[in-house]
Amino acid sequence: MNEYPYPLKIRAVWWKEESRETCWINTLKLPFHEEITCSSDPGRIAKAIIDMEIRGAPAIGVAAALGIASYAYTITNKPLEEYTRLLIDAINLLWNTRPTAHNLFWALKRMKQKLHSGLEETTDTVKLAEKLEEEALAIMDEDIRANIKLGEYGAELVPDNSTILTHCNAGALATAAFGTAEGVMRAAWYRGKKIRVIATETRPVLQGARLTVWELVREGIPVTLITDNMAGYVIRKGLVDLVIVGADRVTREGYVVNKIGTYMIALAAKRKGIPFYVAAPTSTIDLESSIDDVVIEERNPDEVRKVLGHPITLPDVPALNYAFDITDPDLVTAIITEKGVIHPPYPENIPRILEH
Amino acid sequence: MNEYPYPLKIRAVWWKEESRETCWINTLKLPFHEEITCSSDPGRIAKAIIDMEIRGAPAIGVAAALGIASYAYTITNKPLEEYTRLLIDAINLLWNTRPTAHNLFWALKRMKQKLHSGLEETTDTVKLAEKLEEEALAIMDEDIRANIKLGEYGAELVPDNSTILTHCNAGALATAAFGTAEGVMRAAWYRGKKIRVIATETRPVLQGARLTVWELVREGIPVTLITDNMAGYVIRKGLVDLVIVGADRVTREGYVVNKIGTYMIALAAKRKGIPFYVAAPTSTIDLESSIDDVVIEERNPDEVRKVLGHPITLPDVPALNYAFDITDPDLVTAIITEKGVIHPPYPENIPRILEH
Repeated sequence: MNEYPYPLKIRAVWWKEESRETCWINTLKLPFHEEITCSSDPGRIAKAIIDMEIRGAPAIGVAAALGIASYAYTITNKPLEEYTRLLIDAINLLWNTRPTAHNLFWALKRMKQKLHSGLEETTDTVKLAEKLEEEALAIMDEDIRANIKLGEYGAELVPDNSTILTHCNAGALATAAFGTAEGVMRAAWYRGKKIRVIATETRPVLQGARLTVWELVREGIPVTLITDNMAGYVIRKGLVDLVIVGADRVTREGYVVNKIGTYMIALAAKRKGIPFYVAAPTSTIDLESSIDDVVIEERNPDEVRKVLGHPITLPDVPALNYAFDITDPDLVTAIITEKGVIHPPYPENIPRILEH
Repeated sequence: MNEYPYPLKIRAVWWKEESRETCWINTLKLPFHEEITCSSDPGRIAKAIIDMEIRGAPAIGVAAALGIASYAYTITNKPLEEYTRLLIDAINLLWNTRPTAHNLFWALKRMKQKLHSGLEETTDTVKLAEKLEEEALAIMDEDIRANIKLGEYGAELVPDNSTILTHCNAGALATAAFGTAEGVMRAAWYRGKKIRVIATETRPVLQGARLTVWELVREGIPVTLITDNMAGYVIRKGLVDLVIVGADRVTREGYVVNKIGTYMIALAAKRKGIPFYVAAPTSTIDLESSIDDVVIEERNPDEVRKVLGHPITLPDVPALNYAFDITDPDLVTAIITEKGVIHPPYPENIPRILEH
């Protein structure tokens, strides 16, 4: 099951077989410290998601699923009714950690369904935990395989000897492994294409400066850092051949919800006439919501008033902290998924590819 | 001469009568410390400009002019030939501090002309220093009056009860006093218009978070801080009624060279259909250069790899650090100057207003 066609040098979240714990690398400490935590406590895992030790839509979904499985093993001595209630409570707890990423809800729905279908087959709490583990590992494995597949589709869109601009981190550190936007870069790179990456720092939490840089340096792919506000100028100046970003949610109409700042990069790409690609597994696609229903998370304004804990302004000045923005479908050249590349018109082509 | 119609609560650069020194507030230390330095040493003033203790195109021009006058008083005991040579050397030293701001060259040209015209009238080095002081004080006074006038023209474009988005700091701290973009806000505010400001933090040097916030809080104008990459989303969401920014240089064709990030904000404003105004005294307008001749300053990549001295990424990762970007004329609704508001077509209307 775990044979993959490319090396997986970096994993964000994984299952620790011996202790049946959910493990993750604390992305808040990168690139300065590689701190690994393992836990079976859904409260601890929820905190890791809320605080963004674990971040990136696919990684959050995988962590939540693994977390439910880990927890199930710790409560097998409970009566079935309490066992079930505790697991539902844990699912609800994790459900409410972050509002925007679609994969979280998608993964937790699968875990809930697995619990319900399991309960129709057995009343043995250990067997139920095994079923939940199986489902969580499947979610993780599917995420990795989807990223690799998506990466291979995307790699065909990357010209040899080209410069890719990316925003935030849609890498191995945002997924179970391999990454989405960075998955495309990895697949292109492993296939021998000479690429260079320009990474935006991605304020306020600096996922670009801290994670994308670390991840690409470790992979050996040349990377240059810029501030977020430099993206437009480097595109205008002709230093960028294509943009590839990830997504936290893609709606049926082709609106892309992704890290704050994505929209302005898409505007600059459109103006210059270079492709703007979104790399997202189909688990990111939300067929049910219209863009007006999507909740854009507002986080603690202290993230804006500080940088890595250091104040940058007056302590009490009001600050807005939208974590995501919305990129309109007409700005998106194509959406790269594990089922293929989706071109406009999205309202027709997104549902079509999901049916495959 | 120094009677102005509005209070000047904040000055970036000024003349200290007693000691004939050039004084400035160290904007690098704001908003945490209000550190004032006075000097007659052109080397020290050049360093203050290079290091960005003094920044903002008009403030740089004024500081350079005052600096030449201060220096002249310290070398009046030199023979005329050496006196002249030392002053020309000082002008050249200051000329080479920063490449993009047009006002610097404009102000130093005026000081050089004053020196030459003075030499035709007198060989008394003290009298020459007095002439240089007179010219430098005139440049400073003209800057303040231009900002006030510009502010009053601009205030007419600001609807009552509106939200203005601005980038970087084009305030009192970027000019001798009153500011350009912030001058418009001040004039609107003193005339009783209810305005709110959204200020971008402006990486890498954080002039928005550190200076614009401090300046507007001190003025009593409500201000909310955002990261640079949030500007597009808050505009798209309808939270902004108009954008006002300053400029480091405006070309004859209407290209606006301003702090890196301005271009993407202009794209977002255009997309949403809200006005994008540039507030700039005519000393910022460069009739001679085409946009292809303008040198966009590249600064030390460590400014990008760090925030206020704190590392945010791997220490050796390559980084780009363009200090400015270019906004195309079609994105600029109007240019607000002390001679009036310039509308497109700029290649016709810019030279016309300068002739007034």
